[in-house]
Amino acid sequence: MSLDIHVSNEESKRNENLGRLLVKCSDQPGIVAALSKFLYDHQSNIIESSQYSSDPEGGDFFIRIEFHCDALKEKRMQMEQDFEVLAAEFTMDYNFTYGDERKRTAIFVSKEPYCMMELLWEWQNGDLATDIAVVISNHEDSRELVESFGIPFHYIPANKDIRQQAEEEQIRLMEEYEVDLLILARYMQILTPNFVSHFPNRIINIHHSFLPAFIGARPYERAYDRGVKLIGATSHYVTNDLDEGPIIEQDIERVDHRDHIIDLKKIGRTIERRVLARAVKWHLEDRIIVQDNKTIVFQ
Amino acid sequence: MSLDIHVSNEESKRNENLGRLLVKCSDQPGIVAALSKFLYDHQSNIIESSQYSSDPEGGDFFIRIEFHCDALKEKRMQMEQDFEVLAAEFTMDYNFTYGDERKRTAIFVSKEPYCMMELLWEWQNGDLATDIAVVISNHEDSRELVESFGIPFHYIPANKDIRQQAEEEQIRLMEEYEVDLLILARYMQILTPNFVSHFPNRIINIHHSFLPAFIGARPYERAYDRGVKLIGATSHYVTNDLDEGPIIEQDIERVDHRDHIIDLKKIGRTIERRVLARAVKWHLEDRIIVQDNKTIVFQ
Amino acid sequence: MSLDIHVSNEESKRNENLGRLLVKCSDQPGIVAALSKFLYDHQSNIIESSQYSSDPEGGDFFIRIEFHCDALKEKRMQMEQDFEVLAAEFTMDYNFTYGDERKRTAIFVSKEPYCMMELLWEWQNGDLATDIAVVISNHEDSRELVESFGIPFHYIPANKDIRQQAEEEQIRLMEEYEVDLLILARYMQILTPNFVSHFPNRIINIHHSFLPAFIGARPYERAYDRGVKLIGATSHYVTNDLDEGPIIEQDIERVDHRDHIIDLKKIGRTIERRVLARAVKWHLEDRIIVQDNKTIVFQ
Amino acid sequence: MSLDIHVSNEESKRNENLGRLLVKCSDQPGIVAALSKFLYDHQSNIIESSQYSSDPEGGDFFIRIEFHCDALKEKRMQMEQDFEVLAAEFTMDYNFTYGDERKRTAIFVSKEPYCMMELLWEWQNGDLATDIAVVISNHEDSRELVESFGIPFHYIPANKDIRQQAEEEQIRLMEEYEVDLLILARYMQILTPNFVSHFPNRIINIHHSFLPAFIGARPYERAYDRGVKLIGATSHYVTNDLDEGPIIEQDIERVDHRDHIIDLKKIGRTIERRVLARAVKWHLEDRIIVQDNKTIVFQ
Repeated sequence: MSLDIHVSNEESKRNENLGRLLVKCSDQPGIVAALSKFLYDHQSNIIESSQYSSDPEGGDFFIRIEFHCDALKEKRMQMEQDFEVLAAEFTMDYNFTYGDERKRTAIFVSKEPYCMMELLWEWQNGDLATDIAVVISNHEDSRELVESFGIPFHYIPANKDIRQQAEEEQIRLMEEYEVDLLILARYMQILTPNFVSHFPNRIINIHHSFLPAFIGARPYERAYDRGVKLIGATSHYVTNDLDEGPIIEQDIERVDHRDHIIDLKKIGRTIERRVLARAVKWHLEDRIIVQDNKTIVFQ
Repeated sequence: MSLDIHVSNEESKRNENLGRLLVKCSDQPGIVAALSKFLYDHQSNIIESSQYSSDPEGGDFFIRIEFHCDALKEKRMQMEQDFEVLAAEFTMDYNFTYGDERKRTAIFVSKEPYCMMELLWEWQNGDLATDIAVVISNHEDSRELVESFGIPFHYIPANKDIRQQAEEEQIRLMEEYEVDLLILARYMQILTPNFVSHFPNRIINIHHSFLPAFIGARPYERAYDRGVKLIGATSHYVTNDLDEGPIIEQDIERVDHRDHIIDLKKIGRTIERRVLARAVKWHLEDRIIVQDNKTIVFQ
Repeated sequence: MSLDIHVSNEESKRNENLGRLLVKCSDQPGIVAALSKFLYDHQSNIIESSQYSSDPEGGDFFIRIEFHCDALKEKRMQMEQDFEVLAAEFTMDYNFTYGDERKRTAIFVSKEPYCMMELLWEWQNGDLATDIAVVISNHEDSRELVESFGIPFHYIPANKDIRQQAEEEQIRLMEEYEVDLLILARYMQILTPNFVSHFPNRIINIHHSFLPAFIGARPYERAYDRGVKLIGATSHYVTNDLDEGPIIEQDIERVDHRDHIIDLKKIGRTIERRVLARAVKWHLEDRIIVQDNKTIVFQ
Repeated sequence: MSLDIHVSNEESKRNENLGRLLVKCSDQPGIVAALSKFLYDHQSNIIESSQYSSDPEGGDFFIRIEFHCDALKEKRMQMEQDFEVLAAEFTMDYNFTYGDERKRTAIFVSKEPYCMMELLWEWQNGDLATDIAVVISNHEDSRELVESFGIPFHYIPANKDIRQQAEEEQIRLMEEYEVDLLILARYMQILTPNFVSHFPNRIINIHHSFLPAFIGARPYERAYDRGVKLIGATSHYVTNDLDEGPIIEQDIERVDHRDHIIDLKKIGRTIERRVLARAVKWHLEDRIIVQDNKTIVFQ
């Protein structure tokens, strides 16, 4: 199975002149005025803008601005340089990204391929604006499938005894493939704090329960035992607290007494697929800001 | 505001000849054949039938049958008597109920009336087939509202120091009003094991979270702190394990980073209302069987 | 049943200093910069801001800004006067509203009270920021209920033969009660173009189907006949094209072959209630802009 | 990409002894008794049973029974023969199916592969109990993909000028591959009454709207123009009335003013995929009975 990811010339042109600006700072009067004046002065037209104040009085201010600017490719360096003055004035954390600089993604997978498949498929449809640079697995099972998409596949055995050398190899590959985002698409190995610290807010995991219900192992089994009437899935950034990282997205499906564990798993698969795919999509579009172990998602 | 619960003559006639039979026993060949032959021999036509086997080989068998029988009022005593032979043969737990014998309900409420209001309203619309016999509260706030529906209201102060005497008075009232079902519609007092033991699988509570997430107090506050993207509510039978009784129904709504605790509570109210109302409706229609701290709900 | 709508002092104070600005104009560079500078220059802090461009190049631009300003009550007249210059420069349609100027609402109802009840209830809970000024009905049925809330009730008989005089009386009452918003909460009379023209984008109706499916009469009967697996409800602004006005909100519930028309109606009631309540809430918070027979809803 | 559809020995054994019986007849007393006695007398244990009466008095009766019977393979012929007596007595329409006789499926597809992909994927996961015998397309695009699953792919050009010969070829292939079920997974050609008459209630289509809204062509464009707040998809059996066949399943997703036609299509794809997959699954499990252009779905 070969494939081409078609990006039309028109879309490519639009992306070239598309910029995004994410800003976080203490809330204070005049931020929006200053930002919008800056963009106006730099011949940029605001296409979409979303903001959030944790508390209008003395809280934090967050904004995501999507803007269009002719010949942005040539202007962006100067724009970023000019922005430093404004950022200093308001003590901003900020980040510029550009529509023509696609993030590079690595997918980690173990035996079950369905979450990875959903991502490959969305990507193939042109619905995920990323380059999938590499797939890493602690099993060989998915090699043929992954390579049929033209994506490099690396088998790295992993278990608790060889964790350190496995992670060293993984980190090396992330550097080699210049990866921006790591997706744990049902990767069933624990990551060490050392590994996680290399990729802050850049590892997205899918947990197969409606967190914080059923933290830890075997959530479907425990959901069955408890007799819940809905099961869910949760995508979140990975931190050093297992299943406690900032939640990005959750969803559920209805189940009933007739559904045994195997049915819960089947139903759960469809939830996991869409919950992970949404989280990845939002991350790639720079829609997520992490604050205090929670996410602000500008949809 | 006065009101009449209109039951048409036609509906009343239909109810008079409507019976329900719930059965639980070890799974074995021939149960359905025996039950359906019994009903056929007693001139009863099966209208609706739902069954469930926990495991076709060596598990438990559950069935709910709704049947119609002319002149059921006169025949029911004989029918029940005849059934004893069959029940003994298969070692059945069973229960006959009749459409013209409405269950009597007590609603327990504290300060927040919205869950109770939903029930009163559904009842007023003719959508809850019960007689609401009495409302009990540890606050006077809802008296006028309840009495406007023509329902007796009893104020029984309650806190941990006077729990025993409050519960004695409550149990006395349940007997006086011949109550079959107790609904905790945001009743914020803990019930003692002694109280609960008087009403096994006959007390329905609404918990303001998607159990088992956020067991215990202040679930909306904790949901806010955790940054969940969905909030839920759970109706369950009350047992002696707080928030651990058999779950009857759950539902959720989507929330996002802009929703503060007060918003979660507002959104939660609409979930709680419908989740409790559904559970009560199913109980009143004898659709629920409790088994191993889980519910089988024959919808 | 009497009641008080409690608005805390704190909330009242916050509302006093809360303003909203809705703007619509041709998209062009510099609008956000100009608006945010204006507000900053007038000591106003932007709390929430949502914008939408129908097309970044040559389309229409829409924005809703919620802002806080100390002593807004004294400053608002000057602010509005100053704004005229800016509005002229960009040829803006715009509207200022203030948190302490609650819209005045009239509810129109026929025989079935449940949609009205939901609104009264939300209002009683403090969840609808409006003054419900009057209820109009072509039936006497709801008088007692409405008056128990302390709200004036007017019985105006209506049918096609006396439509003109009924509408004259209704229009007179709208003026007398200084009504801003008319809610058709299952009001089953057709309104004439003359009546509708008095209240452009100020009449909200609830239609008991998922429009455009089942336009017109008896939607539940037709949904039953078609064998649909979901039923819905639609709230929309009333125009002179029956059931064709701008859609504000829609929702659905699942049904199946066992649900007869009476069941669809029962299930439908819960959908209608919440769909109408959401639309009304968004209108009251100035979250809706109508454009080309469609709505932009800034949630 | 090669693959094996793993069916464990245990599952294979269970399927071998699993039977299903669907019955439709006039409602009358004693049907359930007669059916359950028949199965009991034939050493069969009822695992699951669902019934429906369109009207307890004088309506139609429908039942689906799933049963287990040791050595069913050897007994089934005798059982079916014995059943004829009972069927004659009650004038039953009926059908026996067996867990080890998998239905054979053909998928028809045009250019867009996503609905077909979802089915192939579920099938590959072992979640669709069918043999996918052949894929037919009026475009070559999907050949490589389909053949990578080891499934024969036939390219049959089709348009209104060559419809007759295309359909003749298709019918011939259906016979050659002994196909039981035809799935139109975004097959964009109209089928003639002659073709449809060969496969009554055996062709499942996915329509990309919430029927009966937006019958016909370009539903997403029309949904966009109307400004709906939800979009949907509908799976139905194909009859000679375009988009008017018995509805099997429907579902929806929320959209808003920011979603342009291209976004509606993307969102719609995920709805179409799951709505079609559910309908196919239910058909394969013999859960659907068609009556009066509506479906009874025994879930």
